[in-house]
Amino acid sequence: MKNISSLLRIQYPVIQGPMLGVTSPEMVAAVSNSGGLGSLPIGGLSPDVAGQLIRKTKSLTSSPGAVNLFAHAIPERIDEAGLQRMQDYLESYARQRSLPFSRRTAGEFRFYSYREQIDTLLEEDVRIVSFTFGVPAPDVISRLKDRGVILIGTATSVAEAVALADAGVDAVVAQGYEAGGHRGSFLEPDLPQVGLFALLPQIADAVAVPVIAAGGIVDGRTIRAAFQLGASGVQPGTLFVPSTESLASEGYKDAVIAARDTDTQLTQAFTGRWARGIRNDFMRTTEASGVGTAEYNVHNSLTAGLRAHGRTNDVPDVVSLWAGQHAGKARKGGAAEIFRNLVAGIDFDAL
Amino acid sequence: MKNISSLLRIQYPVIQGPMLGVTSPEMVAAVSNSGGLGSLPIGGLSPDVAGQLIRKTKSLTSSPGAVNLFAHAIPERIDEAGLQRMQDYLESYARQRSLPFSRRTAGEFRFYSYREQIDTLLEEDVRIVSFTFGVPAPDVISRLKDRGVILIGTATSVAEAVALADAGVDAVVAQGYEAGGHRGSFLEPDLPQVGLFALLPQIADAVAVPVIAAGGIVDGRTIRAAFQLGASGVQPGTLFVPSTESLASEGYKDAVIAARDTDTQLTQAFTGRWARGIRNDFMRTTEASGVGTAEYNVHNSLTAGLRAHGRTNDVPDVVSLWAGQHAGKARKGGAAEIFRNLVAGIDFDAL
Repeated sequence: MKNISSLLRIQYPVIQGPMLGVTSPEMVAAVSNSGGLGSLPIGGLSPDVAGQLIRKTKSLTSSPGAVNLFAHAIPERIDEAGLQRMQDYLESYARQRSLPFSRRTAGEFRFYSYREQIDTLLEEDVRIVSFTFGVPAPDVISRLKDRGVILIGTATSVAEAVALADAGVDAVVAQGYEAGGHRGSFLEPDLPQVGLFALLPQIADAVAVPVIAAGGIVDGRTIRAAFQLGASGVQPGTLFVPSTESLASEGYKDAVIAARDTDTQLTQAFTGRWARGIRNDFMRTTEASGVGTAEYNVHNSLTAGLRAHGRTNDVPDVVSLWAGQHAGKARKGGAAEIFRNLVAGIDFDAL
Repeated sequence: MKNISSLLRIQYPVIQGPMLGVTSPEMVAAVSNSGGLGSLPIGGLSPDVAGQLIRKTKSLTSSPGAVNLFAHAIPERIDEAGLQRMQDYLESYARQRSLPFSRRTAGEFRFYSYREQIDTLLEEDVRIVSFTFGVPAPDVISRLKDRGVILIGTATSVAEAVALADAGVDAVVAQGYEAGGHRGSFLEPDLPQVGLFALLPQIADAVAVPVIAAGGIVDGRTIRAAFQLGASGVQPGTLFVPSTESLASEGYKDAVIAARDTDTQLTQAFTGRWARGIRNDFMRTTEASGVGTAEYNVHNSLTAGLRAHGRTNDVPDVVSLWAGQHAGKARKGGAAEIFRNLVAGIDFDAL
């Protein structure tokens, strides 16, 4: 049980963290072809788009890795007040900077639940499903497990890890406070903000399933330390943001490589959910504005245009520069090369 | 350089974290007599009281450990508006709970700078001085170094570690986000909140002096992981809060032992400075009140009576229950026994 390689049928117990908007099928394939486990994020995507991405990945590798879902519920109706408040703010923010912004009505939104993606996963014979933002409903878990799918949940606290283990997952990602991108949190009233150094051993003590460390995994010493703290696998994410196969803009890649230890912070500004990214104008201005947040799906959709504009035109100040607290260790290069450097010289069986 | 034992002339590279209000001379002596380095906190104490505590410690051990200072400047005059605002709030808080509170005037405060304590340290021939909240002035550093005193600074970011190393310290404590009690932060505009797992390797890469890991050090695996991440020593603190020699009240000790991973948070409510403690009524109510903070020395003095009442009458809801994110691992017992259990089975020379 002390190494997830046999469970996941991979050579190295190293999972590339799923990063929606950054991870490409090419990145997933490069990692999987290198002996790790790539993760294709499809949270919130339509079943059609998800299916296309999965098939694309399968065309590039014979070991297509994991598919990553958002396991939260979609709200039945949109809060109009929150929608208009956020739109007013974003319109004003964009106008002051001569950036484009298009208002939308509640009827124009279409959100996809993980429930709507399960048929596609089964049709495409996905063997490993990881998820964040919650625990899938029991009937979904049963359906996947009945087909022999391996399930990996994401926990930011001991209570969340226990809830996931009780629900029948095969492994738990312990997502430390250091990790870039969205917090997977779903259970506590206060947002869990537990550093990996404290979180990992406490989760490892609390659950019987293997634990995968996320947050600050950047080199051999951090992998060895994670195993020392109770991990059976590791999940680096930010390390792959500057990779050749990454969908990140050049400005985002450069910001990650240049990031100092204190350059990131948790913010709700981009999506309404807490996520860690490099501080920039949008983050600071939005937080200082006091506009608050809308529900995640709405908030995320409303800022999508601005972020896409920032990516296309390389304006990092309006891009969500998701990155962890050890981002500065990342370097450009092919994902396979980044993976090789990461695992070089480590005897995983001896950890 | 990879082990601080020879530098500090101790058997184990393990320092008991200085905890003002919790650490007693008996705790320092128990750790030092067990082969570690005890730390006697004297931050803000008068030279007379500091001298008494140092002499008491020396009477209990032939290896009296380190003395810990607060290296911040004392404000020249008290902000009257902040003083009255905090007093109004505290008086109201206390009245609603039938707790005592005595108002004070600005003239009644007397704060002691670390500068005023240096003569005492030299008179008592203190051999190791650690500090937090900043870098001592160059003339003070010179004076201590000229007498051969070993200096240990506290950093919560790479920039702070570099500033300390540049100032001539002999070792740097890397204080992770997980650590209980006050953040030692003194340099960044935003409070550094870097998890130990990311902070430690980045500081170890940035400075040539030995690095000591603080935050989440509770057992052999965490010590081994810290060394793996670049530490040359470790500094557990919370682990000693429930010890027999601790000045903590029984309610505080029980709260530490019962603490879950998510039960602590950073707060300014008790002293105006950011510190990590177990959530309780005073923390929640004060933060929700929006009263803000006064300058540290004033704020700290104003809440002192309430906290002392809480300690004496065992009302944990008004005590600053400083604790780290792995507090639940702590157990009652003699400090020597706690220390022995911590280092049992670890071959430090092989780390």
